[in-house]
Amino acid sequence: MDFQFFVPSRIIFGRGKVKEAGFYAKGLGKRALVVTGKSSARKAGSLERLTKSLEENGVQWVLFDGVEPNPLTTTVDRGADLARENKVDLVIGLGGGSAMDTAKGIAFAAVNDGPIADYMEGRSGERALPLILIPTTSGTGSEANNIAVMTNPVTMVKKGFRNPSIFAKVSIVDPDLTATMPREVTASTGIDAFFHALESFLSLRSQPFTEILSLKAMELIYRNLIKACADGADPDSREAMALASTMAGMAIGHSGVCVLHAMEHPLSSFYGASHGEGMAPIAGAFLRFVKPRTVERLARAAKAMGLDTEGLSAEEAAQKAVTAIEEMIKELGLPDSISLFGVKEEDIEKLAQHVYNYMGHNLKTTPGSPAYEDIRQMYRESL
Amino acid sequence: MDFQFFVPSRIIFGRGKVKEAGFYAKGLGKRALVVTGKSSARKAGSLERLTKSLEENGVQWVLFDGVEPNPLTTTVDRGADLARENKVDLVIGLGGGSAMDTAKGIAFAAVNDGPIADYMEGRSGERALPLILIPTTSGTGSEANNIAVMTNPVTMVKKGFRNPSIFAKVSIVDPDLTATMPREVTASTGIDAFFHALESFLSLRSQPFTEILSLKAMELIYRNLIKACADGADPDSREAMALASTMAGMAIGHSGVCVLHAMEHPLSSFYGASHGEGMAPIAGAFLRFVKPRTVERLARAAKAMGLDTEGLSAEEAAQKAVTAIEEMIKELGLPDSISLFGVKEEDIEKLAQHVYNYMGHNLKTTPGSPAYEDIRQMYRESL
Repeated sequence: MDFQFFVPSRIIFGRGKVKEAGFYAKGLGKRALVVTGKSSARKAGSLERLTKSLEENGVQWVLFDGVEPNPLTTTVDRGADLARENKVDLVIGLGGGSAMDTAKGIAFAAVNDGPIADYMEGRSGERALPLILIPTTSGTGSEANNIAVMTNPVTMVKKGFRNPSIFAKVSIVDPDLTATMPREVTASTGIDAFFHALESFLSLRSQPFTEILSLKAMELIYRNLIKACADGADPDSREAMALASTMAGMAIGHSGVCVLHAMEHPLSSFYGASHGEGMAPIAGAFLRFVKPRTVERLARAAKAMGLDTEGLSAEEAAQKAVTAIEEMIKELGLPDSISLFGVKEEDIEKLAQHVYNYMGHNLKTTPGSPAYEDIRQMYRESL
Repeated sequence: MDFQFFVPSRIIFGRGKVKEAGFYAKGLGKRALVVTGKSSARKAGSLERLTKSLEENGVQWVLFDGVEPNPLTTTVDRGADLARENKVDLVIGLGGGSAMDTAKGIAFAAVNDGPIADYMEGRSGERALPLILIPTTSGTGSEANNIAVMTNPVTMVKKGFRNPSIFAKVSIVDPDLTATMPREVTASTGIDAFFHALESFLSLRSQPFTEILSLKAMELIYRNLIKACADGADPDSREAMALASTMAGMAIGHSGVCVLHAMEHPLSSFYGASHGEGMAPIAGAFLRFVKPRTVERLARAAKAMGLDTEGLSAEEAAQKAVTAIEEMIKELGLPDSISLFGVKEEDIEKLAQHVYNYMGHNLKTTPGSPAYEDIRQMYRESL
């Protein structure tokens, strides 16, 4: 056994903690670029809570609210220009995965020459402006790792950019910021967190630290996601989801995800599916593919999820986990067919080629190392 | 719920990984102070493996092998003088808790004025030389936190110095370095790791990240410590113990320990007991004190340890954990009475006063917040 564990971010967890953002920002510089989505953070009052804390601590701020869902590398480059023009000392990402990943990209691109797309293709760079990340959804876990997922608008490749410099200095996980998330966003981001936990646990790069994080996250999400959807004002299930999402984010930072995540990416970049919604209809086919190769692991997942596995064989317990996951997806009302995004039988070739050409790292971590034909087959089963 | 999680150290785990020490050292400076014990690291070949890696990477090194068990603050001050005289860029601690804690103290004292004892009493300081820590025992977990336990020879107070600057930049956990530990050292350091896991789990400052680390560490130690003692050359149990010790060290860094650790400290400083040996005879009294207040937690510990708790009440499961721990201590052949260190009935007053006066933080984390009379009573039961 052989692994590294490295999460240099200070994780600050608790209801109302966003009010400490200014205190930590002050320690990192005088002027911050605040990166957020067009309107949601503003509507929900999160942006106001953040900027108030910055002002109380004498930190100047400039707003970049041009973040779109599935953020483009060109958006990141524009943000980096703004960061340079305003000579900011730090970058604060407030929002879901798109806002935080854009903030990570900007922090990096602001101190490195040329378009960020070049660095996603292998150009090397080691520095970034210091980052504070503040999630307002419970899904991406971006606050706990050094991955930023961006889409290149030329190639339409959506993938993760990974660099040691884009760990947050400080991540503030304040469950109160998630309280106003609409039901559908709670469901689609929450299922993303669940798949982070499940895929990192099944990943061939899973290791002891990520195993305990993945299992705990699965337990918390299975017990709380449906509750958080049913009653968004329930603080306990919001808190559990926020915690689970951060834990799962830490796990994928080390162990990666599997082919399920990879197969979703072209659904986002070509069909505009939201990330969690895009994975839901593929999950069944993915689980059928990996199950014969991961019986013991799925049986452990069943136990972690709190399913009664007393007296069951490993095979039976694994099947119980698969069934429970499929039922949870159904109960959350998530899409059950990729045709709902507009995918047709004849598009599958293009999708499978995309995964095969650009997502090789996620195929390598998947038990059974799916071949091209396996990917096509999983898409077909998901129509 | 409200907590922080922060471990900025890069943890590198795996058999043979000590050979990467030079690579990481090179990234931190040109000249290192290597801090280790008088002879054990040399005898076992660990020092040679480390210095070879440094030399292959062009890193110069100076040896400070003046570390004694239960290191004194004055030893740390001497080491800091040596570090300054030789203008070293970094400090490498190789050994058990004493060597790593001395290295931490030296890294700090080398760049701060005056004796380190002053900083243990509250003088403030924020910087330290960069640190690499390499454990050769599986017990202290010092490689995964920012605590250095030292004894002040004037007051004879042994306590933990905690500073954000003394996290290792890199910790190399190489189970092969523990393979030559004698049976008794394996047992006494291993039981220390077990109590780190147990006490951090019972601690009133326990939180979700430390909970999963503590539980996993208890599982691994309960399953492997007796095996590692029986056959020191068995790589699997050595690997499990090394992992557990690091996990438990991370847990105590956040959640602290309880009164059991506090009660051991004067046994080390006044009677020269080794840390693990000193805790063994007090464990029974400690468990009897906390059990009524921690039934649910001890029942979870029983489950984590792999005990069969099917159909048992929480109370019964908790008792099963207590009994299993006491049996493990007996099977390891650890001391069963503090009188073996020379403690007499009439000394108990002095010991209890010492704990009460200097270990207040460990009383606050202990369920039931033991009063002065409770501490006396636990010592009496341990005679």
